[in-house]
Amino acid sequence: MTERNYPKPVIAIFGGTGNEGPGLALRWAQAGYLVIIGSRQTEKAQTIADELNLKLGGGTIRGMQNNEAARHADICVLTVPSGAHQATVEGLKEDLKGKILVDATARVNFREPKPPHPPSAARMAQDTVGEEVSVVAAFQNIPAHTLRTNLDKPVTSDVLVCADDLEAADIVIHLAQEAGMRAYYAGNLDNAVVLEGLTCLLISLNKRYHVRSASISITGILTAENSP
Amino acid sequence: MTERNYPKPVIAIFGGTGNEGPGLALRWAQAGYLVIIGSRQTEKAQTIADELNLKLGGGTIRGMQNNEAARHADICVLTVPSGAHQATVEGLKEDLKGKILVDATARVNFREPKPPHPPSAARMAQDTVGEEVSVVAAFQNIPAHTLRTNLDKPVTSDVLVCADDLEAADIVIHLAQEAGMRAYYAGNLDNAVVLEGLTCLLISLNKRYHVRSASISITGILTAENSP
Repeated sequence: MTERNYPKPVIAIFGGTGNEGPGLALRWAQAGYLVIIGSRQTEKAQTIADELNLKLGGGTIRGMQNNEAARHADICVLTVPSGAHQATVEGLKEDLKGKILVDATARVNFREPKPPHPPSAARMAQDTVGEEVSVVAAFQNIPAHTLRTNLDKPVTSDVLVCADDLEAADIVIHLAQEAGMRAYYAGNLDNAVVLEGLTCLLISLNKRYHVRSASISITGILTAENSP
Repeated sequence: MTERNYPKPVIAIFGGTGNEGPGLALRWAQAGYLVIIGSRQTEKAQTIADELNLKLGGGTIRGMQNNEAARHADICVLTVPSGAHQATVEGLKEDLKGKILVDATARVNFREPKPPHPPSAARMAQDTVGEEVSVVAAFQNIPAHTLRTNLDKPVTSDVLVCADDLEAADIVIHLAQEAGMRAYYAGNLDNAVVLEGLTCLLISLNKRYHVRSASISITGILTAENSP
């Protein structure tokens, strides 16, 4: 992309113990970002941070209790299980003011996958945190396995980014590019329910074609700024 | 794909006056299928068929009144505007028995695009026509412009196919391949609501990136059978 010289924001990841969080943490840390793993317990967060730093061979990932992590960060990324989504957003609400909340939540039960009803989880998060926080939906459809392996290689699946705040969306698109992915703006927070539902289709594709990292990429758009 | 030697079914397309129908008609006719354009009025159907045959330089596309078209066809493809969806399915119900109904409907208002609620249009169609008809959702996300141009070239966007009946899904996957597209089975009819909602994201992508044919392709699956 054309250099936009964003200052490197500090990124906190909530749900660092899950599938998606650690992969994102590794990729951003490798790209030179200060990454904080947030967890309900400080010790647990630090253990995960240590493991990830070990994988990177010495890194800048730190572990903190959730609220402390949010206070230290400029951008907070939510990758918690969907059952913990609303409670986590509620609990972080005060510490998120003035920041970007990236919501990767897909309300899909992996045993009985069914596309969720609108409104999107990200829209609900936005309603909870209010106007002082910019919620951006992203990363729902990037296979965790892909994120965690071949860290030095670009990811072949693309990130769709939904947000009401276009400036915040651009920052997240840039962050995705920094992690080796192409990313595109795909409409407002209402559209994010489709990103959640896509998870069901990817589960079906994985099952039918005996793979574990089926995903999507965008066709019909060729822009220099969308090359990672 | 490995040759499966399906006999070439007769295909009726309802909504041949819309955006998606004519492109599919042209591609299937070119691949040697007998294609019937269905319309409420025989004359209108014949006019469209004549125009399409002219475009092909002599072709096998015919025009018939909707019910007559359905009776002559093995596979019926619904590309009517979403407002006409339920009434069209009701009206064709008796003539569809024993056949496959391919439902390309996306209940999205192009002026105010919002992802629709479950159940999917295809699920509703299945409930309407009953067990003697196999409904298959497909082609929601293939840009009409892409379908209608460069008829001899493969389409770069992929078709996601949702169906409860796996055999019917395989037939439609094959038909998509015959029209120059890669196609994948993406779960049951409930998942089709995501194909509808994806339309909203593609509208947003087209608008944001100043293109008219943004679409998706599938990554992470490499099978010989999915090459067109």
